[in-house]
Amino acid sequence: MAESSSRAAPVAAVVGATGAVGRELIACLERRNFPLRQLRLFASARSAGTTLPFRGEPLRVEELTAQGLRGVDVALFSAGGATSRRFVPLAVRAGATVIDNSSAFRMEPDVPLVVPEINPEALRGHRGIIANPNCCAIIAITPLWPLHRANRITRLQITTYQAASGAGAAAMEELRASTRAFLDGESYAPRVLPHPYAFNVFSHNTSVDADSGYNEEETKVMQEIRKIFADPGMRISATCVRVPVLRAHAIALNLECAAPLSVAAARDLIGGAPGVRLVDDRERNYFPMPRDASGQDEILAGRIRQDLSDPSGRSLALFVAGDQLLKGAALNAVQIAERL
Amino acid sequence: MAESSSRAAPVAAVVGATGAVGRELIACLERRNFPLRQLRLFASARSAGTTLPFRGEPLRVEELTAQGLRGVDVALFSAGGATSRRFVPLAVRAGATVIDNSSAFRMEPDVPLVVPEINPEALRGHRGIIANPNCCAIIAITPLWPLHRANRITRLQITTYQAASGAGAAAMEELRASTRAFLDGESYAPRVLPHPYAFNVFSHNTSVDADSGYNEEETKVMQEIRKIFADPGMRISATCVRVPVLRAHAIALNLECAAPLSVAAARDLIGGAPGVRLVDDRERNYFPMPRDASGQDEILAGRIRQDLSDPSGRSLALFVAGDQLLKGAALNAVQIAERL
Repeated sequence: MAESSSRAAPVAAVVGATGAVGRELIACLERRNFPLRQLRLFASARSAGTTLPFRGEPLRVEELTAQGLRGVDVALFSAGGATSRRFVPLAVRAGATVIDNSSAFRMEPDVPLVVPEINPEALRGHRGIIANPNCCAIIAITPLWPLHRANRITRLQITTYQAASGAGAAAMEELRASTRAFLDGESYAPRVLPHPYAFNVFSHNTSVDADSGYNEEETKVMQEIRKIFADPGMRISATCVRVPVLRAHAIALNLECAAPLSVAAARDLIGGAPGVRLVDDRERNYFPMPRDASGQDEILAGRIRQDLSDPSGRSLALFVAGDQLLKGAALNAVQIAERL
Repeated sequence: MAESSSRAAPVAAVVGATGAVGRELIACLERRNFPLRQLRLFASARSAGTTLPFRGEPLRVEELTAQGLRGVDVALFSAGGATSRRFVPLAVRAGATVIDNSSAFRMEPDVPLVVPEINPEALRGHRGIIANPNCCAIIAITPLWPLHRANRITRLQITTYQAASGAGAAAMEELRASTRAFLDGESYAPRVLPHPYAFNVFSHNTSVDADSGYNEEETKVMQEIRKIFADPGMRISATCVRVPVLRAHAIALNLECAAPLSVAAARDLIGGAPGVRLVDDRERNYFPMPRDASGQDEILAGRIRQDLSDPSGRSLALFVAGDQLLKGAALNAVQIAERL
């Protein structure tokens, strides 16, 4: 940190500053005392002109234009895939390094897809774009990395309990408003998400591939984990489901390793993973919960036990929870920026 | 039905009549026009004296005593394990056939554990007690039975999204009250369940085995499925989780069959299962949801696709939802009574 502070601090930008992730990006930059000369905030024309606080001062949000991005050294994009596809190449051409939270470039071979606790070396030789992975991918695999290095995970089955925040601030508000309407006995027509959200659970709202039956979220999770782990042969399946929770995802994981392993060994490896806190109290029935993960930088991991459906002793089940807006998005992006 | 009506109709009893399942038992008996000479309602001393409607008349709830059960031909118990352990043997001794919704007798070798769509033949030769299975077991396997018969399921992994109703009417009320408090910015101390329920997800509230790490709910589900399927070798693991939903469970299933099978063949088998409705619309992203399953007799099944983590073509993933109080409890019990 001393070294990076001694260099000329960069001009940083948050694109999509008024969104759920954008606001957390600003908060993370402030909270982590990110060294910068200036912070600039961008959003669509609709949100331009509003102000957001940063280090005690109100910052005016600018309309995102190609010209506006000139002079930016590091741009943190979180404004959706369409905006990223249009403006990220312009930002790079204007000299910025972009950390992009959308899925637009994640699977491009020359774009590093980075979880700093896992594959920081992938940042070397980037060409101006670094992709921030899907939130479920980050939350699922950050706890698994030391285990994977010690005893290769050959098969991974992911079943998610995903919060509203992944669909943006409007979805979080829809969850609140529709829940209140339900409790008051009033009807509520969903506007943001395709299904009633109050006291309901539904398959992830991204479109479903007609042939495979997997939705886009699941496909992203499966592809991205292989890329981050640099393990194209890892066999993965995912079931992505929304639950009525505001901002932290929980994920049930079933995994198979190359060799048998004990629960005690797995607990040591998972509990020792950077950025992870072990929450695994069988006696008190206390395990990772979205409520505890909300607002926390660390991913909570626990319920580590043998998967009894595999008698070989090579399979485990566990349960994790992580803040979708923090480690699942904004925090990971800022951690990448810190590594640059 | 004509034949059973021509015999002397039985005196039926609901024990635990004022509970969440008890009320649904009464409603199921009425709605299905169950042939009976008299219905008697029993509850603890605390609830005795209240009246509940049945076929347009108010029925007085009696305090449960050994004497009171005399003259009852069929008793539907849903008053918890302790009450069942004490009173079910007394009811049987007094001449009643008992259908018990608790887990007290389910794993007794001489007690049939029955899902009428799956193993009605297990009712033959019962000794007065028939056990109604765990709600998750019923909801998970009713759609799987025709598939299992066509192509044996050798491995089954169950990940649940369980509603409040499984913990009783008080838990449902706690979910409502704590959610309202959360939305109003007020604090709420959990009274019924061990963790905050509003906009949260937590590992099932039954106690966790110190050695295996599995909770009692998971152990029940794994044991009971093997018994109902009469397949002691089936390899099963379960992860049981509460979600903030009122009365219908959703379950993600990953299964492996003895031989490869196509999604189309699986869809035909699952869609043809008695008591099951296929909800599997990839184009509209419409799949089983607790909201749609609530108040429905049928279990909804869909999201049928290959489990991509198994390249052998023998594994599938699917998603089901069923009303915990109906097919998960009261309806299945009344269906057993109809078969007797």
